[in-house]
Amino acid sequence: MESVTKTFGILTAGGDCPGLNAAIRGVCRAAYDRYRMNILGIANGYRGLIDGDVRSLHPEDFSGILTRGGTILGTSREKPFKTNDIGEDKVKAIKENYYKYKLDCLVVLGGNGTNTTGYLLSKEGLNILGLPKTIDNDIEGTERSFGFHSAMSICTDAIDRLHSIAQSHNRVMVIETMGHKAGWLALYSGIAGGGDVIIIPEIPYNIKAIGCHLKERAKTGKSFSIVVVAEGALSAEEAGMEKKERKRLRSEDGLPSAAYRVAGEIEKETGMETRATVLGHVQRGGIPSASDRLLATNFGTAAADLLARGAYGKMVAQSGYDIRAVDLSVPAGKVKLVPGDHHMLDTAQAVGTCLGV
Amino acid sequence: MESVTKTFGILTAGGDCPGLNAAIRGVCRAAYDRYRMNILGIANGYRGLIDGDVRSLHPEDFSGILTRGGTILGTSREKPFKTNDIGEDKVKAIKENYYKYKLDCLVVLGGNGTNTTGYLLSKEGLNILGLPKTIDNDIEGTERSFGFHSAMSICTDAIDRLHSIAQSHNRVMVIETMGHKAGWLALYSGIAGGGDVIIIPEIPYNIKAIGCHLKERAKTGKSFSIVVVAEGALSAEEAGMEKKERKRLRSEDGLPSAAYRVAGEIEKETGMETRATVLGHVQRGGIPSASDRLLATNFGTAAADLLARGAYGKMVAQSGYDIRAVDLSVPAGKVKLVPGDHHMLDTAQAVGTCLGV
Amino acid sequence: MESVTKTFGILTAGGDCPGLNAAIRGVCRAAYDRYRMNILGIANGYRGLIDGDVRSLHPEDFSGILTRGGTILGTSREKPFKTNDIGEDKVKAIKENYYKYKLDCLVVLGGNGTNTTGYLLSKEGLNILGLPKTIDNDIEGTERSFGFHSAMSICTDAIDRLHSIAQSHNRVMVIETMGHKAGWLALYSGIAGGGDVIIIPEIPYNIKAIGCHLKERAKTGKSFSIVVVAEGALSAEEAGMEKKERKRLRSEDGLPSAAYRVAGEIEKETGMETRATVLGHVQRGGIPSASDRLLATNFGTAAADLLARGAYGKMVAQSGYDIRAVDLSVPAGKVKLVPGDHHMLDTAQAVGTCLGV
Amino acid sequence: MESVTKTFGILTAGGDCPGLNAAIRGVCRAAYDRYRMNILGIANGYRGLIDGDVRSLHPEDFSGILTRGGTILGTSREKPFKTNDIGEDKVKAIKENYYKYKLDCLVVLGGNGTNTTGYLLSKEGLNILGLPKTIDNDIEGTERSFGFHSAMSICTDAIDRLHSIAQSHNRVMVIETMGHKAGWLALYSGIAGGGDVIIIPEIPYNIKAIGCHLKERAKTGKSFSIVVVAEGALSAEEAGMEKKERKRLRSEDGLPSAAYRVAGEIEKETGMETRATVLGHVQRGGIPSASDRLLATNFGTAAADLLARGAYGKMVAQSGYDIRAVDLSVPAGKVKLVPGDHHMLDTAQAVGTCLGV
Repeated sequence: MESVTKTFGILTAGGDCPGLNAAIRGVCRAAYDRYRMNILGIANGYRGLIDGDVRSLHPEDFSGILTRGGTILGTSREKPFKTNDIGEDKVKAIKENYYKYKLDCLVVLGGNGTNTTGYLLSKEGLNILGLPKTIDNDIEGTERSFGFHSAMSICTDAIDRLHSIAQSHNRVMVIETMGHKAGWLALYSGIAGGGDVIIIPEIPYNIKAIGCHLKERAKTGKSFSIVVVAEGALSAEEAGMEKKERKRLRSEDGLPSAAYRVAGEIEKETGMETRATVLGHVQRGGIPSASDRLLATNFGTAAADLLARGAYGKMVAQSGYDIRAVDLSVPAGKVKLVPGDHHMLDTAQAVGTCLGV
Repeated sequence: MESVTKTFGILTAGGDCPGLNAAIRGVCRAAYDRYRMNILGIANGYRGLIDGDVRSLHPEDFSGILTRGGTILGTSREKPFKTNDIGEDKVKAIKENYYKYKLDCLVVLGGNGTNTTGYLLSKEGLNILGLPKTIDNDIEGTERSFGFHSAMSICTDAIDRLHSIAQSHNRVMVIETMGHKAGWLALYSGIAGGGDVIIIPEIPYNIKAIGCHLKERAKTGKSFSIVVVAEGALSAEEAGMEKKERKRLRSEDGLPSAAYRVAGEIEKETGMETRATVLGHVQRGGIPSASDRLLATNFGTAAADLLARGAYGKMVAQSGYDIRAVDLSVPAGKVKLVPGDHHMLDTAQAVGTCLGV
Repeated sequence: MESVTKTFGILTAGGDCPGLNAAIRGVCRAAYDRYRMNILGIANGYRGLIDGDVRSLHPEDFSGILTRGGTILGTSREKPFKTNDIGEDKVKAIKENYYKYKLDCLVVLGGNGTNTTGYLLSKEGLNILGLPKTIDNDIEGTERSFGFHSAMSICTDAIDRLHSIAQSHNRVMVIETMGHKAGWLALYSGIAGGGDVIIIPEIPYNIKAIGCHLKERAKTGKSFSIVVVAEGALSAEEAGMEKKERKRLRSEDGLPSAAYRVAGEIEKETGMETRATVLGHVQRGGIPSASDRLLATNFGTAAADLLARGAYGKMVAQSGYDIRAVDLSVPAGKVKLVPGDHHMLDTAQAVGTCLGV
Repeated sequence: MESVTKTFGILTAGGDCPGLNAAIRGVCRAAYDRYRMNILGIANGYRGLIDGDVRSLHPEDFSGILTRGGTILGTSREKPFKTNDIGEDKVKAIKENYYKYKLDCLVVLGGNGTNTTGYLLSKEGLNILGLPKTIDNDIEGTERSFGFHSAMSICTDAIDRLHSIAQSHNRVMVIETMGHKAGWLALYSGIAGGGDVIIIPEIPYNIKAIGCHLKERAKTGKSFSIVVVAEGALSAEEAGMEKKERKRLRSEDGLPSAAYRVAGEIEKETGMETRATVLGHVQRGGIPSASDRLLATNFGTAAADLLARGAYGKMVAQSGYDIRAVDLSVPAGKVKLVPGDHHMLDTAQAVGTCLGV
């Protein structure tokens, strides 16, 4: 019967990212105002559900948080399906607390790992709803995840700043964005910032091609260049190696960071003065962009509707600009890479950007 | 034969808006680098084509303009199909210059009016390609037009600023965004900024409903509120009037601006201290957002591809996040309003925002 | 004896302005951590002290507020020395509550009015300390007040945005900043934004001189211009009138706002297309700039030191970049205008800006 | 005789920094409009004067550059008084070109090195005027140099972003700002950003004191902290070593960067999860802040006045908020450190910030 008041738990897991609070507010306001549900906030991701660190959330808790960075619930990288040293049965603890708190559903906000865990818990019989958040935009099944737009804007601002330095000093500036496996962030901010070279993990780079491009630019009087590189970038040579071997070599060279490796190779290849910048954590903190607030609010209210309808085992997602729901099996265990025929790759090349090949 | 070098003219018309230079760069770089076309820049919109104010554009002209506000070509509100006082035959002049300069195509960047003129010129036998730009997002046939995202971000920033004032002073702050007929800008920035009331032209408002909502908020301890109103907002009463009558009444009251009208009505209805802010021209100027640079670059390079293929009579457009082309007849003479069942209206209400009804 | 724990009340009065929370935090952290004082927060300016709307402040109340806009204490424009309709003896009520709450001192954060009231209360025998906040920078005795820098940055950003519009449309853009009597905000943001004309209340303007300047610019190919005008700007003609007469004329013309008056006069004088923008409340809201956070923090901790030393009847102030204290009689009843020989006026003219004369 | 038209050269040297173009515009507009001087722009710092890479500057060259990052003249780190491998006599070349181009004066914009070179050239008989630019604010003789305010704002923004991450993850975030010898940037942005620990080169830090402070915070429920560290930070232990020895040890540890060293020590000392971010080049690029535009414009126009009066051998400087000139010997060969009794150090401690001791 629909007249019975539902109770759900909500948690945020994985890396911090702009829009988490906006999404929490979206879920909770809609669930509270529209459907009069009971809301339990779970602290620090799955860790809080293991430990029973749970409290009731009331309107004053999720009011005024739309614009705030971070997450009022706290987060952690706890992966309950991985056994730890002390052999704790974390899945069992989660299930016990799920039933103890009489949850009708558990709403999880997070990236690939979080939604994969959500999928596995739903296979254990729990009702789960997922919301996709990640600055990497690498969640399968949704066109966008919140956090990506804020990060992309921050990276673009940084590239804008480096442009003036590159130009004044006649230098090559290499800037590293986040993105271990997927290059969305480097690709999008690279085009928005007018990068001359963009290197993403999906396309192993050839330093000769890059050097050639930079030297061509110099011939037309442009003795400065911007190179945007994802942290997971690897050269064609490295792409042929085993991961272990790659790690060993990088550690030997004392160059764990992609920006420094690429900068060194460019200097060697071209003789041009080159500098590296690693953007780091600033990419994922602070006030969410207007676009991320919109997306997070959309996802949140859509999740509340699914909750009300009892349509569990789903992740809310964006298809085009529309909001829909996909089965949690869709993102589970996957990473959404930039496909080789993505129109943004063509756009980048059309405005003269070298993709390292 | 594809081996013949093509020549095209490019102009920007209508109101200034962020992303114009990014789009010009997108068209020109792709047309020049990929297809080796000749490019003629036309000054100040259709006016320049009437007067023959035309110059060759070279790579140095469209280099380094990605991030710059405004348009390097200048713009005007010239509407060639409207006869002016001196009875000038502007369409004839445009056609003469089109042939004189041996254009294979004319690329026009603008809003509804500009693309409508483009459509009419294509019916006159000219090859035309349109690119949709407007901060209002009201061009039929495309999900987004560039300029909208920048404007939306600026409005959201302004709402953020007004929030602290509303709260500190226990006031109702009314903020007016652009949007004569379509409420996209008010709706999106209103949700992103956490507006408590959003009034758009598509939904005539009832001041009693608004007053009721604000008084309900006050009862729950929130003695401040943010009201976001599109400049074309009108009350249910006004919606029943003829436009002329409406204008007369507004002018009598000395209140041509929606924000001031609504603020006055709210004070009268609720007795709450209310203040009005009209954002004005700042919404449409300055550095384009990263998203607008991406969209404008996408549109520009897509237009160059259409040019190369000789696929004229089209406007480039966004469908979902994909880029496609629609016939110029699609946007011609139309205004894309917010449909009554748009998911953003539901999202707004789900987080507790009153839509004035 | 210094070992006795002091108790002080703190209030924020007058218009909202960025940095209030930073200053509250500065006073309270230093007073609590260094001197172990008791802190009473008074709601909504002097109104709260009249009504006895007072609560204890603890570290969790003033933690995490450094970057937040507005004031956690609320504010009002209550002027206790002005008798209201109901003949309430507000000064008496303030004194009664001062003694009832056993305050050793009352710390007031505000502008000219607030510090003047503070001075009058100190003449009534209360211990008062003032902190200067205003976006107008018009408080006598201090080089800067917090709020000014944030407002100046916001105005400069807006001018930057209008620049691209002016240029693309070959227009004159008139932008109105706050400043009824003092032109600091218009002058500083006008220079920072590269304004071509700057009109401040201290220098009545001559429309012929402005028209002449704009036409000269047009002759050198610059058919666009930016005019920055303080809201209190008045023409040489108006400067000769009585205030009442001036008000009557402006109201007859339906042009209460300086930007619209000046824009109309420029169009009439030069025939150039001119547009007006009134920035309004956004100038005073939102997150404080880094500079305002520094100044507010400096002022706050300096006030705590004065509290500890029992050096009452003072306003903290900035002299050069140093922090000092001036007697409350210094700002009382005064407005700090831009002196005619201020070096910024000369700087403006040196880079070609017309000051309207 | 004043009627003789003066000719001066202008160059920008050392690291890029926001405000250079604003300062160039200030010098040139005033020199051109007020004094009708001839202006020669010298490319890439002192290098351009050695090579005779010189061109006339006209109003269109320095128009519209106020807001632009970088320097239209280019820059280099050429130090003419240091002999290079090929034994080039660079000072001789500079003097020859100075006389060949009939310069009445050479205006140099730069930091400590640039102004020191200016001083040495003035001892060689050339007329020199210096303008102080550096994001480090470490030039002796001036309260502020332009570039500092922009950098300080960028760092504060970054700290704001890291705050939300620190809080959501219960982590210690260490952020490294520029500043090899002087800690102005870390100190000011650290206070503005609400840093819990600030480490500057002038005050060697004790990791025990820092750990103690962080653990105290954790006890009061604040399990996150922000540590702002200047790149030149060194521990009390390192302070006792020879520079060579210090370098060797750091290189052995593979930790050349202060943020990573300090983060490692904090984790070891406290067991708290700690992350490091190095801001890098973004601190010195991009659009100058409003304050830096004002300061640079003031310095520029003041330099033009000195040029006109023939008052050579000076550096323009800020004393309080006033503009004055100091002898070039004042900054020559010096670095302005944060004095141990600076009021900002006291302010930092008053709001509970640990200075590492």
